[in-house]
Amino acid sequence: MEKLIRIDVGAEGGPKVTWEAIGKYVGFGGRALTSAIVYDEVPADCHPLGPENKLVIAPGLMSGSAASTSGRLSVGCKSPLTGGIKEANAGGQAAQYLGQLNIAAIVLEGERTGSDLYKVTISKDGVKIEVDNNLKLLPNYDLCDKMKDIHGNGVCVISIGPAGERKMANSTIAVTDQEFRPTRHAKRGGVGAVMGSKGIKCIVIDPTGTTLRRPADPEKFKTANENFVKGLQHHEITGQRLPLYGTNMLTNVLNEAGGYPAFNFRQGQFDGCSDIDGAALIQLENDRGGIGSSSLGCHQGCDIKCSGTYYDKDGNYLTKQPEYETIWAHGGNCGISDLDSIARLDFLNDNYGFDSIEMGTSIGVVMDAGIIEFGDAAAAIRLVEEAGKATPMGRILGSGTAATARCFGLERAPVVKGQAMSGYDPRVVRSAGITYATSPQGADHTGSYAVAPSFFEISGDVESLSLDGQVEESRNLQIVAAILDSTGFCLFVAFAILDEQETFDAMVEIINAMYDLSMTGGDVVELGKNVLRMERKFNEKAGFTKAHDRLPKYFSREPLPPHNAVFDVSNEELDRVHAY
Amino acid sequence: MEKLIRIDVGAEGGPKVTWEAIGKYVGFGGRALTSAIVYDEVPADCHPLGPENKLVIAPGLMSGSAASTSGRLSVGCKSPLTGGIKEANAGGQAAQYLGQLNIAAIVLEGERTGSDLYKVTISKDGVKIEVDNNLKLLPNYDLCDKMKDIHGNGVCVISIGPAGERKMANSTIAVTDQEFRPTRHAKRGGVGAVMGSKGIKCIVIDPTGTTLRRPADPEKFKTANENFVKGLQHHEITGQRLPLYGTNMLTNVLNEAGGYPAFNFRQGQFDGCSDIDGAALIQLENDRGGIGSSSLGCHQGCDIKCSGTYYDKDGNYLTKQPEYETIWAHGGNCGISDLDSIARLDFLNDNYGFDSIEMGTSIGVVMDAGIIEFGDAAAAIRLVEEAGKATPMGRILGSGTAATARCFGLERAPVVKGQAMSGYDPRVVRSAGITYATSPQGADHTGSYAVAPSFFEISGDVESLSLDGQVEESRNLQIVAAILDSTGFCLFVAFAILDEQETFDAMVEIINAMYDLSMTGGDVVELGKNVLRMERKFNEKAGFTKAHDRLPKYFSREPLPPHNAVFDVSNEELDRVHAY
Repeated sequence: MEKLIRIDVGAEGGPKVTWEAIGKYVGFGGRALTSAIVYDEVPADCHPLGPENKLVIAPGLMSGSAASTSGRLSVGCKSPLTGGIKEANAGGQAAQYLGQLNIAAIVLEGERTGSDLYKVTISKDGVKIEVDNNLKLLPNYDLCDKMKDIHGNGVCVISIGPAGERKMANSTIAVTDQEFRPTRHAKRGGVGAVMGSKGIKCIVIDPTGTTLRRPADPEKFKTANENFVKGLQHHEITGQRLPLYGTNMLTNVLNEAGGYPAFNFRQGQFDGCSDIDGAALIQLENDRGGIGSSSLGCHQGCDIKCSGTYYDKDGNYLTKQPEYETIWAHGGNCGISDLDSIARLDFLNDNYGFDSIEMGTSIGVVMDAGIIEFGDAAAAIRLVEEAGKATPMGRILGSGTAATARCFGLERAPVVKGQAMSGYDPRVVRSAGITYATSPQGADHTGSYAVAPSFFEISGDVESLSLDGQVEESRNLQIVAAILDSTGFCLFVAFAILDEQETFDAMVEIINAMYDLSMTGGDVVELGKNVLRMERKFNEKAGFTKAHDRLPKYFSREPLPPHNAVFDVSNEELDRVHAY
Repeated sequence: MEKLIRIDVGAEGGPKVTWEAIGKYVGFGGRALTSAIVYDEVPADCHPLGPENKLVIAPGLMSGSAASTSGRLSVGCKSPLTGGIKEANAGGQAAQYLGQLNIAAIVLEGERTGSDLYKVTISKDGVKIEVDNNLKLLPNYDLCDKMKDIHGNGVCVISIGPAGERKMANSTIAVTDQEFRPTRHAKRGGVGAVMGSKGIKCIVIDPTGTTLRRPADPEKFKTANENFVKGLQHHEITGQRLPLYGTNMLTNVLNEAGGYPAFNFRQGQFDGCSDIDGAALIQLENDRGGIGSSSLGCHQGCDIKCSGTYYDKDGNYLTKQPEYETIWAHGGNCGISDLDSIARLDFLNDNYGFDSIEMGTSIGVVMDAGIIEFGDAAAAIRLVEEAGKATPMGRILGSGTAATARCFGLERAPVVKGQAMSGYDPRVVRSAGITYATSPQGADHTGSYAVAPSFFEISGDVESLSLDGQVEESRNLQIVAAILDSTGFCLFVAFAILDEQETFDAMVEIINAMYDLSMTGGDVVELGKNVLRMERKFNEKAGFTKAHDRLPKYFSREPLPPHNAVFDVSNEELDRVHAY
């Protein structure tokens, strides 16, 4: 990919487009590219909603090619939620189409003037920017229906919902999937608010007239890719469990291990898990005649296909098959065990443009404050509707979990660097806790997919309740995540590449064949480390220190039933994570 | 003062009192003592509302003696608003009574268990702690009426309102004045929330049977004190303007200089100033037959007496004479020029326990967001009432200005380290801006009383619009503030001691005579520096860096009419402030 598109929203007479050669960023894709541009161009001390911030949208290095499962999109900026650097990663069709269009990144920059709302269309014929104030405050589904009417279903839409327009710290950027639904989100860190602060409602990407990118060495590429796909299909997780149960395969695993954070991280198990776990979800979907989980990838070219469709009891589309994190955050974390309610919450989040993890943990905090009861699904749904309508209560929830806890005077907010943890209690899944603490992105399971080796004995046999090796595990998986997020390969390939050397080698070989390189595995690891170093340097300039690489103190004080474990990783151990 | 009282609210069977000798803290008072105990005993990385935080209440070193104007009280903790160390300073009767009781500090510590609310009574007979859940959510005025009924008006009450009980980040600790009204507040940084987190509603201090503390050298003390009082009376500000107009003498001074932050810091002048300035206020108070400003000190033994009483048009008590900061924050900053409305807002803040500066700037932000109109006094009053009732909108406002801006998706929050600026626009009153940026306390005019020399040509002739010497001015005044806040002398004596060497010498001589010391002026300055060093070290451990010693970027970008000045002090200059 050879071009950067810059859109200066503050130019006189309206947003102005500049095409730039990729120049010094050659070889950078996805997270490596978003973090590099943010590091180079955004003053670390700026306000995330101010004119100095930039939003960078970049397909992975392999996106738009025939490389299997490589269609992930990176969105980067200074985060309105954490105040640090942010890369939020999404599936959907955008990365593939941008790759095919030879576009390495779209950079939204400058100071919005006035209150007009813009629509951007990108095709092989160029970039078109139009004012369209009729789009104001449209939820994502309505917006996408409108775009489908105009452009047909051969395009992809990147958009913000009302949350992003209102510059809420919990706001996503939605990407349409293969069914032209806005179900794939660059979810974390409030990236939607930065797009909102630039006055851009949506970017329509039209790949008409383009084809898959051609590798430098097509034969080598084809062979490597076949080996890679074989590795994915052969592995138990990527070949069987994920296609069968989706990410919700995790619910009973975590629950049985006692590391499933229930009732706002007060318990490590939830009685209602059997009503919402992978088996229950698939059974329900199949009973209702929906398309099961094994049939859908979140983007074209995926060979894992962990997604699906969720219909209501009357057979009407309700939402995509909800992910584990959503089912946990709105489910066990809120004491809710009704899948239909969780699916409704998933839809509302997607439609308004909220991160379901952050929204679920915010509602967990509100329940802990006694404002509504744990388990009250109807009340939870009302709250997300309030957030979508931006009532004062909705403004609180839309500002994230840390802000919600502050507004209700609570210590117990499960956040690091202002971002909520996900569905792995750090007292039991310690390497996840180490990653929550030390990731430059704030608490985030995708900072390292630490649950993988801990529970599935992949890449070693780290016990979840033992300390040995957990720092190393977190470090290594953070590096792996930085690599994968830069290539466009889905994070879930980690299961296979960490477990089977030949699959890892095949992945490296795909990149080499695409770009006529001869990188070793070690070279790739070095690239991952560089991404992390850059991100940490940005954060340091933004005012982050070791003191921010810590979990809230209550995790070290409050034992988590049933193991009654506390988080006992010392500060010294945490500080070892970034010694590479 | 020789004793510390510790109240462990987490002790089995209810709060437990321990008396301790002052030990290593001998010679420490007020801010020096609160900051030392917080530095020594509170883990810098704890949550401000968690069990590891402590609330330290300490009279100044001279409080309880006959030293003129030395009855100020310090309240310290890790701040729920800033996340850094906090000392909030209040007048009222508590410091004098505590000094007379020989109590150097009250330390509230430990983990509250259950939801009982406690009342503490301290007299020469000891400390009594009782559960009194009938006090729950009582506003400060009602609480004080109740206490007066029980204890008579010879005691003093330190209390929190509903804001503190609800652990809001904007919440004060009220102290009763000479008229037994809860009008004097340790206002800034959310100290009330920390008292609330310990479950202590109020502390009644009964000085019955005590007398003024006796100096080591009574003759020397008497002479020094007479010279000090002479200096205060002789100086134009402390002898004339403050007694005549109160702190509101500043309104027209700032406005004429173009440094009066109006409409959420969008303009440097406000058309309505002549309706709310010192002359207008005193005229109104006198017309209504109130006790004018020249008659009341906020505590016994004050020789400046800048306070008074504000009656409504029917002659009913409305509030104490509002201070400049309140009149500015709720007045010009919100486009409101009606004194009766401002007085009502002042009363509501005192009654619920909100910092009027933080509340006024929060409402300014809400007006900027277009939720209510600038100038709409009735709407502003409704909002403070909502805050007192803790509606969701009230929760937002009660969480402070930074949180309010976050909830409404705005960049423009006039805060540093999460605390709102006061009534001196940093683009014009640059040394105030330098102090906002660099004070370990967060943005706060009392971090250095920088407006003094800038506008009144005290202690030099620093021009408000020139850069030369402003870093030195901020540094020196931060040291002076740290000294005064530790001694119990009111910050306003700064006008006289900075301008007249003999008044400064008299002040040092009072301390020497009290404690049989022979400190020089230089020794006293060193003590002030040590307080600042300790506070900065705490903040460093809490995660603060140079990046936090900055103003929001918009102050460097947005010119302030009418001078169209921007804040152009470089980061290098800011970093010079603490080079001592």
